[in-house]
Amino acid sequence: MALKAVFFDLDDTLYDTTLQVRSARENAVKAMVSAGLNASEEKALSALQRIVAKEGSNYQHHFDELMRVFDSRDPKVVAAGIVAYHETKTAYLVPYADTMPTILPLRDMGFKVGVITDGVPVKQWEKLIRLGLKDMFHTVVVAEGKRRQKPSPLPFRKAAKNLGLKPCECLMVGNRVDRDIEGANRAGMATALLVDAGRQVQKPRDRIQEPDYIISDLKSILRLVCA
Amino acid sequence: MALKAVFFDLDDTLYDTTLQVRSARENAVKAMVSAGLNASEEKALSALQRIVAKEGSNYQHHFDELMRVFDSRDPKVVAAGIVAYHETKTAYLVPYADTMPTILPLRDMGFKVGVITDGVPVKQWEKLIRLGLKDMFHTVVVAEGKRRQKPSPLPFRKAAKNLGLKPCECLMVGNRVDRDIEGANRAGMATALLVDAGRQVQKPRDRIQEPDYIISDLKSILRLVCA
Repeated sequence: MALKAVFFDLDDTLYDTTLQVRSARENAVKAMVSAGLNASEEKALSALQRIVAKEGSNYQHHFDELMRVFDSRDPKVVAAGIVAYHETKTAYLVPYADTMPTILPLRDMGFKVGVITDGVPVKQWEKLIRLGLKDMFHTVVVAEGKRRQKPSPLPFRKAAKNLGLKPCECLMVGNRVDRDIEGANRAGMATALLVDAGRQVQKPRDRIQEPDYIISDLKSILRLVCA
Repeated sequence: MALKAVFFDLDDTLYDTTLQVRSARENAVKAMVSAGLNASEEKALSALQRIVAKEGSNYQHHFDELMRVFDSRDPKVVAAGIVAYHETKTAYLVPYADTMPTILPLRDMGFKVGVITDGVPVKQWEKLIRLGLKDMFHTVVVAEGKRRQKPSPLPFRKAAKNLGLKPCECLMVGNRVDRDIEGANRAGMATALLVDAGRQVQKPRDRIQEPDYIISDLKSILRLVCA
């Protein structure tokens, strides 16, 4: 069946979330140490990483926990971390260089485009707004809650349905075999795995995680959909 | 006794909080309506102002409440409000033009300078950091909790003590007679009321709220302390 829509994952597919979050944490820790946190930058950073690993990235009190680890109570130190974290996050919240040069030609060619992402809906929308992408897509599905999230086929089916399409008319592009590729395969979509040059490539655990295509930059989608 | 320190209130004394918050709310409402909130800007703004009046300005869910008022559930709308609100707040978080030209000469003349403010300590420190004022003061006292806040004399006594001074060696500068002036008078400090040209002047309710000086711009402090 002819392809009519292309869906994109958001984090690490349309912009570099990994670099953004790593830089934000590094700058936050630098600012906290410089504001008087009694620790080396190295120790503070690894303590923060342990807290994030334990509590998850949507936890609201990473810096409060970090203060407890180093027995500090100075609100100036927490505030320094919060300001540096948010300023860095905002500064790095820019689309990949080829995000717009991929999406706009797809639209011009008559394809519908959409986003399928996991997370807190308001937070994911905040990202789309700050990325300057809020009006770019025909549909945006944010899946919240473990059972509804990728690799569940539900958000993929919902995105296709929002556009009045069958999943087999859609291509999903994402960077995670265990979320984007598995979920879209289960829904019956075509799948393309985005492999970032500098990073470790995820290996499919079994057939359901195997992508139809592997691409090393978003723009390759343009050649794929014309093939 | 000779004056040795000058203390400043933060909000509406070192920067224009009123203008900042009003602009942030207006822009947030504009963004929400433009993102699809089913209301006129005027109605949405007055609904938001009612919510803020009822719940207080440190309440975390103003926009969620606003969504309920207009029976909307689109996370894009809330996100649009949040982004516009924070971007506007940040853009307006700049010191009054004469804040630095007042504080630096005071320091040069050998005076200690400090901040005495009410609020959530981390939030008030965030403001000082973004204002570029975090290293400018010899002491910063943030009073949290109703009984410890202005017009209690406690934060004023604490600020003097932090600098090893008696209250009578200190001058407090603020824009509220019922908070800054009354509290500093109760602690035994000299007091200066900052009266903003465009705004209504608060009238003292009784003697304890009467300032020693009335100034219409911060820089006048420089003449006061030399007198």
